[in-house]
Amino acid sequence: MTIFAKIIAGEIPCHRVYEDAHVLAFLDVGPLSLGHLLVVPKEAKAYLHELSDESAAAIGRVLPRLCRAMMHATGATAYNLLQNNGSAAHQAVMHVHFHLIPMSSAGGLGIVWKPQSLSSDAGAALATGMREALG
Amino acid sequence: MTIFAKIIAGEIPCHRVYEDAHVLAFLDVGPLSLGHLLVVPKEAKAYLHELSDESAAAIGRVLPRLCRAMMHATGATAYNLLQNNGSAAHQAVMHVHFHLIPMSSAGGLGIVWKPQSLSSDAGAALATGMREALG
Repeated sequence: MTIFAKIIAGEIPCHRVYEDAHVLAFLDVGPLSLGHLLVVPKEAKAYLHELSDESAAAIGRVLPRLCRAMMHATGATAYNLLQNNGSAAHQAVMHVHFHLIPMSSAGGLGIVWKPQSLSSDAGAALATGMREALG
Repeated sequence: MTIFAKIIAGEIPCHRVYEDAHVLAFLDVGPLSLGHLLVVPKEAKAYLHELSDESAAAIGRVLPRLCRAMMHATGATAYNLLQNNGSAAHQAVMHVHFHLIPMSSAGGLGIVWKPQSLSSDAGAALATGMREALG
């Protein structure tokens, strides 16, 4: 059982911000900046690709409202949403979680961006492969 | 009109992967890794906090399927979802977009993570402020 499953079950306390049938949002206790939120599905899945459409839609639906509440409470005007899948991609707790991270002079998410190029042929082949996988 | 609005309108071509009434997904032509996708709402809003619940839910709903298609087409097993709001938070195109970025030995998203601590009092006050803002 992950720490987030225990928080959802009420076995570990949290600074709860929002809860509905599918979603719980609470403050990260190791925040990158003041107001850093975690938004988790109650469905106990490790990775986003395992999540039910219903859980994923419920999280999506409440994100704009959570962003507005975070901005109101912190005064932040810029922020990042980050969701990591797999330890190679920096995931530490194996229960799906979305980080909502205000950007401020006192902290925030650091990003390293090293873009490559995509040839027209490679892009066409990849997009075809993905469309076929979608069925 | 942003470049993404022009892509949605069909004025600029893209390597299209998925489309429904609310959402368009296509390959980023400056990818961090092969298979880097952009998932955008057709609703022309700059920031996540401005998006309608309906658009946000539609994006959430399709994310697990897009992750599976991306994994199938690229072989990636780890990946990040990133959505930036505001130029201070690395947003470059002022139309909401979610980056879905495979992690591979040849590339991926770099993250700089400098956690702080959150006192119990500060957490309680912040969470209360956010709950009140949610109404």
